[in-house]
Amino acid sequence: MELEKKKWGFQGNTELNSASISVRGVMNMLMGNISKDDNRPIIPLARTDPSTFACFRTTAVAPDAVAKAVQSFEFNCYAPSLGVASAKRAIAEHLSKGLSYQLSPDHVCITAGCTQAIEIILSVLACPGANILLPRPGYPQYEARAAFSKLEARHFDLLPEKAWEVDLDAVEALADHNTVAMVIINPTNPCGSVFTFQHLKKIAETAKKLGIFVISDEVYAGQAFGSNPFVAMAEFASIVPVMTLGSLSKQWVVPGWRIGWIVASDPNGILQQSGVMECITSYVEMSSDPPTFLQVALPQILGKTRSGFFSNILNILREDAQICYDGIKEIGCLTCPHQPEGSMTVMVKLNLSLLEGISDDMDFCLKLAKEESVTVLPGFVVGLKNWLRITFAIDPSSLDDGLKRIKAFYERHAKKL
Amino acid sequence: MELEKKKWGFQGNTELNSASISVRGVMNMLMGNISKDDNRPIIPLARTDPSTFACFRTTAVAPDAVAKAVQSFEFNCYAPSLGVASAKRAIAEHLSKGLSYQLSPDHVCITAGCTQAIEIILSVLACPGANILLPRPGYPQYEARAAFSKLEARHFDLLPEKAWEVDLDAVEALADHNTVAMVIINPTNPCGSVFTFQHLKKIAETAKKLGIFVISDEVYAGQAFGSNPFVAMAEFASIVPVMTLGSLSKQWVVPGWRIGWIVASDPNGILQQSGVMECITSYVEMSSDPPTFLQVALPQILGKTRSGFFSNILNILREDAQICYDGIKEIGCLTCPHQPEGSMTVMVKLNLSLLEGISDDMDFCLKLAKEESVTVLPGFVVGLKNWLRITFAIDPSSLDDGLKRIKAFYERHAKKL
Repeated sequence: MELEKKKWGFQGNTELNSASISVRGVMNMLMGNISKDDNRPIIPLARTDPSTFACFRTTAVAPDAVAKAVQSFEFNCYAPSLGVASAKRAIAEHLSKGLSYQLSPDHVCITAGCTQAIEIILSVLACPGANILLPRPGYPQYEARAAFSKLEARHFDLLPEKAWEVDLDAVEALADHNTVAMVIINPTNPCGSVFTFQHLKKIAETAKKLGIFVISDEVYAGQAFGSNPFVAMAEFASIVPVMTLGSLSKQWVVPGWRIGWIVASDPNGILQQSGVMECITSYVEMSSDPPTFLQVALPQILGKTRSGFFSNILNILREDAQICYDGIKEIGCLTCPHQPEGSMTVMVKLNLSLLEGISDDMDFCLKLAKEESVTVLPGFVVGLKNWLRITFAIDPSSLDDGLKRIKAFYERHAKKL
Repeated sequence: MELEKKKWGFQGNTELNSASISVRGVMNMLMGNISKDDNRPIIPLARTDPSTFACFRTTAVAPDAVAKAVQSFEFNCYAPSLGVASAKRAIAEHLSKGLSYQLSPDHVCITAGCTQAIEIILSVLACPGANILLPRPGYPQYEARAAFSKLEARHFDLLPEKAWEVDLDAVEALADHNTVAMVIINPTNPCGSVFTFQHLKKIAETAKKLGIFVISDEVYAGQAFGSNPFVAMAEFASIVPVMTLGSLSKQWVVPGWRIGWIVASDPNGILQQSGVMECITSYVEMSSDPPTFLQVALPQILGKTRSGFFSNILNILREDAQICYDGIKEIGCLTCPHQPEGSMTVMVKLNLSLLEGISDDMDFCLKLAKEESVTVLPGFVVGLKNWLRITFAIDPSSLDDGLKRIKAFYERHAKKL
């Protein structure tokens, strides 16, 4: 009899599985651990997506602009590779507001959210042997895409005792002649801090000294509600070339819309000369882009949203940050080194020695999800083992409820003295 | 005096520039060559995007569903990595209509158009040393993404004298133990042919024999207007695992919406066992996805579009194909080996020996754009040097005008005997 068994000669690229220690992946594990018998609402402090809470509802300007564009039947066609011209102009104008000079629409690339912006930048920089400097803690999308692109990631610390500022000595020590860029996220995800003008200037000067450029992830642009105002890194572009990444996601509270941008601030033409801009064009020519009708809606959205919408969101975030900071003080095993003053997340340190039968941050988060239907992101995902990343951007009463549940969880698992 | 000059230590990944011989890139060159002094309308026979012509206007069902979803304020949140559940169900149901069995929503991944579907599949298959078999002529997105992923591309011919069927002997000769899959595009882009049931079955049997699976690009699914009906490759999934790629782009004439899918037809669980499915999940967890509100609109769009919309589009395409075939016969330097019976494009052979001062297909297209404001894609972009790819899916009178201009161009450049 002939052998029926057929050898199939293909397999998946398993390197991918290790590249993608993603927020999404861990989130799925946490959600899978929630008890079906718990009738209480799930309190989502792991994923940063406040859009489902009524108090974080986006302005009607945004969906109305999208509906108008799609129902016009005029924008069903492909968009130009780098984006629709009117949308690029609107982004350049919008980002120029906080700057002492005017950005050019020619240096804007419209992306499918900041996620694709990160993909594009890291793909473009991944020359053989190159390395990039990333913040720790940070946003794991950078690590995943760097690993996938075989771009070596080197980590500098953000210093909790210094309001999570960049350890610039570490940056200098890490960089070598193969270093291409450093990434900052400001307001910081995951720390909830906001860099000062002086600190940003020092970052620019350090990068210039090292001959590297700065990738500034400003997804939380403008979302500073403490004493430090938000300053765009592009303000220092005469010192060092800057690539700014941004999106509608957080400021307009529409993370599922997936529309963002890369903007080069390069008054001295250094990125241009390096071939980086040309490579971005090549990469986007073989990539998907945001729907044309969504791009076409951008000028309306960026231009017509009232300041009251933003100040209302900031007020809720400020209240949330205070509730979060105060609530954490009540939980013996957690320490928050710096009261959040920006973005939507904060890092808190887990003191495992005060807990019984909890082995690490992941174990803490899995058990917390199971017992209290509260999801919190284990710190290892963002680079700090045995810390937690808490998203405070949910409605204030749910946040209060969530913190009380974490407290109850702690008290149940506290080591008996 | 101190040296002012600073060495900047970064550059773009120049491999990207060679990877992206894209339709978009060549299109931009052609458009750049159009004379500003020509007051006639540009006739776009290079890019396949009929959405700007009134006769190809999409059904109101589609934009209305999107507008409703975005204006509900309920879908501003992130979507699950593989897509919104209701949309995955709708896609599985939609594709099951033409099949003798039911597809599972669990095997659907929603993508940012077919462009991202290609990116995902080729990234997932790019294990060191692996190779993939691609059709020639084909769709250059495959070549670009394979090159970028360092997945070796090997080409089998489509045979013009056999209605552009796959040269299966070539497939067998090309495959080795590192071959992972073969790609077919049906209805064929760029040839305008439609594979028969028997030919698809032979493809399945050949792939099974070689231990490789079939990636079936069915972006033009259902757009068969000749004697061969469209048959989905998934019909042969009991012989060989099939990954079907599709999108709304062509059937709903909304290429700029960027929403598509990958569907695995794998009744014997072979793709599952190979790890390919798991790798797809890993890849999409670190990638952007189509806007949630657009995904949410899919069940309405797929379920409520009337058959009259599709038959009307097919009637126009049939008329266009005839105009195109007849028009080409009048142009001495062009030969069309097979009358188009599907998709929106056709391949025609260029006889350079009949022309004066035209060096190759690119030269032909650049000069045609300059002199006649007609864009046609040079064949080298799709793998056939000194052929042309003509998109006939535009409004019939413009198509007629375009063909007359090509004829005039030919007559002006014909070699004097």
